[in-house]
Amino acid sequence: MDCLITGATGFVAPFAAQGLRDAFPGLRIWGTGPEPAPPGFPLEGYLPLDLKDQAAVQGLIDRVKPDLVVHLASQSSVSESWRTPVESFYNNTNIFLNLVEAIRRAGQRCRVLSVGSSEEYGRHAASDLPLTETLPPNPASPYAVARVAQAHLSTVYTEGFGLDILCTRSFNHFGPGQSDRFVISALVRQFVAMERSGDRRLTVGNTAVRRDFTDVRDVARAYALLFQKGERGGLYNVCSGRSHSIAELIQTLSSLTGLAPEIRQDPALLRPGEVMDIIGNPGRLHATTGWMPAIPLEQTLNDMIAWWRSQP
Amino acid sequence: MDCLITGATGFVAPFAAQGLRDAFPGLRIWGTGPEPAPPGFPLEGYLPLDLKDQAAVQGLIDRVKPDLVVHLASQSSVSESWRTPVESFYNNTNIFLNLVEAIRRAGQRCRVLSVGSSEEYGRHAASDLPLTETLPPNPASPYAVARVAQAHLSTVYTEGFGLDILCTRSFNHFGPGQSDRFVISALVRQFVAMERSGDRRLTVGNTAVRRDFTDVRDVARAYALLFQKGERGGLYNVCSGRSHSIAELIQTLSSLTGLAPEIRQDPALLRPGEVMDIIGNPGRLHATTGWMPAIPLEQTLNDMIAWWRSQP
Repeated sequence: MDCLITGATGFVAPFAAQGLRDAFPGLRIWGTGPEPAPPGFPLEGYLPLDLKDQAAVQGLIDRVKPDLVVHLASQSSVSESWRTPVESFYNNTNIFLNLVEAIRRAGQRCRVLSVGSSEEYGRHAASDLPLTETLPPNPASPYAVARVAQAHLSTVYTEGFGLDILCTRSFNHFGPGQSDRFVISALVRQFVAMERSGDRRLTVGNTAVRRDFTDVRDVARAYALLFQKGERGGLYNVCSGRSHSIAELIQTLSSLTGLAPEIRQDPALLRPGEVMDIIGNPGRLHATTGWMPAIPLEQTLNDMIAWWRSQP
Repeated sequence: MDCLITGATGFVAPFAAQGLRDAFPGLRIWGTGPEPAPPGFPLEGYLPLDLKDQAAVQGLIDRVKPDLVVHLASQSSVSESWRTPVESFYNNTNIFLNLVEAIRRAGQRCRVLSVGSSEEYGRHAASDLPLTETLPPNPASPYAVARVAQAHLSTVYTEGFGLDILCTRSFNHFGPGQSDRFVISALVRQFVAMERSGDRRLTVGNTAVRRDFTDVRDVARAYALLFQKGERGGLYNVCSGRSHSIAELIQTLSSLTGLAPEIRQDPALLRPGEVMDIIGNPGRLHATTGWMPAIPLEQTLNDMIAWWRSQP
């Protein structure tokens, strides 16, 4: 069996590859991304490619003839989508459309995991928590609009064209190797920098904000299970069912490192209208696949500390 | 005041232009479309342009500096969107995104009417009729997905970027000059052809299908009223609140022309899974603007018969 991972040079891809290898012994995994492959790339083959190029995507599908497709490629930053909404839309919705259209044209029989985002829920009432898949999407950023369109296209390609697509609404995930564009990794990086410099200043945004965080390795296991047991056309939250505040994470990092930071709020990190609490309901994923998150928050943070310590 | 109409060589544009001139005396109207302007084009100026070209759209906004923008440009055929989903998406969502992004970048203060479609409602229960704006969208074709994304982008650009955009969900509209890609115009064309040929065969699809039809001149008046009285960020059905079956329309055309057709069903015109009845609730539009449809069905059909008779 052959598996294609888009966004293969991204944070999630190596974990997804490992999760799929564990679940599908003998699976050959191909990756694609816009950049050349980094040295020691852990997949069978890497094909550099701009997914915005429809003909190139067609060539990719015709060459790999995948049985499984994990679509991780995304310009996944909400704040970047406010700065460059047109590019964000191309690099979410249009690239996904090129992918499923190429699969349709090739008549390639495969199962596609369309990775989406909790941002699709957008603004909601506190009484809607935990967020369940039956809530209508209410996208509140260019990024979220693009992700909702991706999910709607998944439905149309499944029901109208007979493709086999599953969608996730993946909530925040974190782990070693994550870019410091994301809040937890930025915090861990700062703690490790404190160890080195002796400076104790920690720059933060709104620390009361609460999010539903899952270890990226648990997320990868959920994706593999969805390939095995998910329903065609299904939509699944991938989340823990609990939320933690940024303040709690700082507290935990403080005890794990033994460092007491001086917290400084940077107004540039405050987002007007930010949703204060997001919790997802993982009930459907659990009922369908048996999945439960297994890695405790402290372990993930420890692994992230070790990873940032290993960086120059 | 200056008004820009996209999709200016389309069916609706001349009616929209007339409706806006009636509502805003002295309004200068500029049009744009992908083709060269047809001879005798009834606007102040026509600028041929591919709305997929972001730089060209920016130049258009910088040049016209519109106070009002009527976004009619759309690859608006559902069946065509099933044949060429990628192109349909570009020619709906991406062109709209280019337009509002150009307005945002220019800092151009203007009111934008984002014309959408009843197709955004998609599949629904008969108990949901008449369809109201509070129903969540459930798009069932590539075209409908693209239109929902356009409406979501409108919300994001209004709430996040401060633009002044109103959205419609426009139901079926019809009138003289409409392409025979649309069902009523195709029927009228066939009746006029019968008059000429003596042949009485009328090719139809499913004549039990019911749709909510509004004369294009009433639709144009609704758009002008929305510019005057619509709420920023508002979403408005444009519809009559009643549905007619294709069989009823054939009956009326038969009495208007005095011709008794021999009806032949063409299986190629049947659409699997087609929604049997669509009725919109025009209550919000009426409450906000006082609009009511004014032109009786028979008059529209008579005008369409006269128009098709005038064609070679």
